[in-house]
Amino acid sequence: VKNDINSRVEILAVGSELLSPNFQDTNSLHLTARLNELGYSVRFKTVVGDELADLSYRLKQACRQSALVLVIGGLGPTTDDITREAVAAVLKKRLVFQPDLLERIEQRFRRRNMPMPESNRKQAFLVDGAAALPNRNGTASGQWISFGKKNIVLLPGPPHELKTMFEECVRPRLERRRPGYLARRVLKTVGLTESQVETLISDLYPKTGNPAVTVLASPGQIEIHLTAFSRRSSALAVRRLRGLEEKLARRLRAHLFSVAGETLEEVVGQLLKKKKRSLAVAESCSGGLLGHRLTNVPGSSDYFLAGVVAYSNAAKAAFLGIPPSVIERHGAVSSVVARRMAQGIRKRARGDFGLSITGIAGPTGATPRKPVGLVYISLAWAGGAEVQRNLFLGNRDMVKLQSTQKALDMIRRRLLLKSAGGKAIPG
Amino acid sequence: VKNDINSRVEILAVGSELLSPNFQDTNSLHLTARLNELGYSVRFKTVVGDELADLSYRLKQACRQSALVLVIGGLGPTTDDITREAVAAVLKKRLVFQPDLLERIEQRFRRRNMPMPESNRKQAFLVDGAAALPNRNGTASGQWISFGKKNIVLLPGPPHELKTMFEECVRPRLERRRPGYLARRVLKTVGLTESQVETLISDLYPKTGNPAVTVLASPGQIEIHLTAFSRRSSALAVRRLRGLEEKLARRLRAHLFSVAGETLEEVVGQLLKKKKRSLAVAESCSGGLLGHRLTNVPGSSDYFLAGVVAYSNAAKAAFLGIPPSVIERHGAVSSVVARRMAQGIRKRARGDFGLSITGIAGPTGATPRKPVGLVYISLAWAGGAEVQRNLFLGNRDMVKLQSTQKALDMIRRRLLLKSAGGKAIPG
Repeated sequence: VKNDINSRVEILAVGSELLSPNFQDTNSLHLTARLNELGYSVRFKTVVGDELADLSYRLKQACRQSALVLVIGGLGPTTDDITREAVAAVLKKRLVFQPDLLERIEQRFRRRNMPMPESNRKQAFLVDGAAALPNRNGTASGQWISFGKKNIVLLPGPPHELKTMFEECVRPRLERRRPGYLARRVLKTVGLTESQVETLISDLYPKTGNPAVTVLASPGQIEIHLTAFSRRSSALAVRRLRGLEEKLARRLRAHLFSVAGETLEEVVGQLLKKKKRSLAVAESCSGGLLGHRLTNVPGSSDYFLAGVVAYSNAAKAAFLGIPPSVIERHGAVSSVVARRMAQGIRKRARGDFGLSITGIAGPTGATPRKPVGLVYISLAWAGGAEVQRNLFLGNRDMVKLQSTQKALDMIRRRLLLKSAGGKAIPG
Repeated sequence: VKNDINSRVEILAVGSELLSPNFQDTNSLHLTARLNELGYSVRFKTVVGDELADLSYRLKQACRQSALVLVIGGLGPTTDDITREAVAAVLKKRLVFQPDLLERIEQRFRRRNMPMPESNRKQAFLVDGAAALPNRNGTASGQWISFGKKNIVLLPGPPHELKTMFEECVRPRLERRRPGYLARRVLKTVGLTESQVETLISDLYPKTGNPAVTVLASPGQIEIHLTAFSRRSSALAVRRLRGLEEKLARRLRAHLFSVAGETLEEVVGQLLKKKKRSLAVAESCSGGLLGHRLTNVPGSSDYFLAGVVAYSNAAKAAFLGIPPSVIERHGAVSSVVARRMAQGIRKRARGDFGLSITGIAGPTGATPRKPVGLVYISLAWAGGAEVQRNLFLGNRDMVKLQSTQKALDMIRRRLLLKSAGGKAIPG
């Protein structure tokens, strides 16, 4: 794949903010993943500011070097947005007004009972000969421009607009010209560190690099990315992966929670749905993140009943029925209070499971005996309850994230048991 | 600043892993922040893989366009590492063996009681005429190469090696040549669309581009980035910003919530702290995100009492005291229920304010009269309550995010009033 010019792609991200210390072009990562699936590899990535001369210069070079140039951003209604103008200048074409595009933009504003600002009019212009790529989530139309054997594709910068447009308008066109087949598989694990995963599996890495193995660490979750390539067929690429995947799965056992891209909260949701069980959660230091993650899953109202963020001790009494005397005796961050929170929310929300988190997310609130990162997590069910004590490293965000990861894993492991009364699967 | 070639810098990051979907070049963000401090602005950022032809091609272009080219990575001992060779080829210079560099590398291995692998020998070569930049944390020496008025700087890829080398060897050289002083300011607004912001302020944009203005949109939040440059002093650059900032603030009025980088939840937290008020929240479709955002702020336990995610109607009764008959009559997504949720959580958590969100995040749950994106938001206080009906566009994540943004803005605007009983500041 490396030397096939037709599989060579350049991504050009436009926007002066991407040249500041505060913004990162993340769209190109998403596009790269999608392009790789179709057998295309990315050769160059470039970031250019909102200046016509700079953008035109880089566009010219990109068209010379690459068969396919994806340009991200600069399609908005403001005077900063100059991608349309730059492409037209480089290709020596006119910008042509499209009444139907204007009508679509005006409709969008009408639906929200707002008048269309005059500035949005420029979004109704296409480079002469370009195909419009409809934008389901915004007013900026994409464009597909072919000249000779080369192609320039203009995509909007906001990620949700770009992603939908890629799937609906760009993927089908690229699929027809694809240089080969790439199969990818992401194995997600929970409850192991990066080096524990490495030690478990590194002797299984193929020497040929096909499939290629990459281990990626994020807080509370280690992912193993497998990629296999075949010029001939998707089935061959998939077959290359399959054998390795099975060997890895045997090594990783119950730590492996997802092989098809699902998040941990999706896996928990699927298990709850399948077993017809309901869940309610009580959070302290995670401050709503557990509820937020669970309800990010469409259809979660089928099994998610309620969540309580009981930050103050008064709230722990009012919403979970924990007597102030219990909190005084054991402390709000304790095994006893964690268990009472799980049992309390389960009872009050009339759920099958109650799941709770109480701890010290930091940077304040620590004591000599209770450091930042100390978090108790508890799960209650009809037959009993369990509590785990954890000491997480990292800042406030990291502690919140790892707490919810561990809590979701706790209920996942219990749901994997044949009977809810059995012992949890050991780590 | 825009047309001063001496302040123009290109960053070239080398490494095939940076062209995969899983890795991001974060070194360039660090370098950009340091460069901006010294008055340099970054004009282009490019990522190239480990291929000699590609790297040479991009290097040649960079040298033509920019006065200063920072090349990151490709200085290691493996055959993949080709930056030295590419630079020598582009400048038509030899690579010269440096016995003292080899001695330093061998020492590093001796200290760890390891023999130096033969492959590390290539790290003892400099481009003819280059100054070596010592690497305190690794074996890869950096290089500073001057030719005519242009400069190429080679830096190692591992972030801790690059950061130290920049501070010790690169910053002092750049300081001597600094083109000037850069000041930066970020104005964040809520409650306006991107084009509404443009319409309000675009006549204030300085024609000179100094200060430069960039408008950035994210769901429910529009940011205005100001950058000013002075050749003479930092104070002058700041003064350039100040006048524009004040004019913009007068136009944006209460829509402007932050000029020093704070998030909306931080601003709300500061106001609650200052006014010694407490808050409790009741969420339905936002599923805990409002509590999560509020508790992301360190010290939020001072004013955040509790949150309830009342997904089911039973939970709305159990935790917020809303009779099922009220929900049956008006529907869970209604103005009446939103108000009852805000009043209910306020009363039960004994807070000064109760804030609630109920709506349809999608993709399921819509009815002909209640589409996806319909969200009621309510704020209750001692003297009364207000409710707003919203219709948000976008997918589940976007509806959740915009709902919390609007809710935070609702309490922010009330907290800005002299008395809590007055009318909210109009949008």
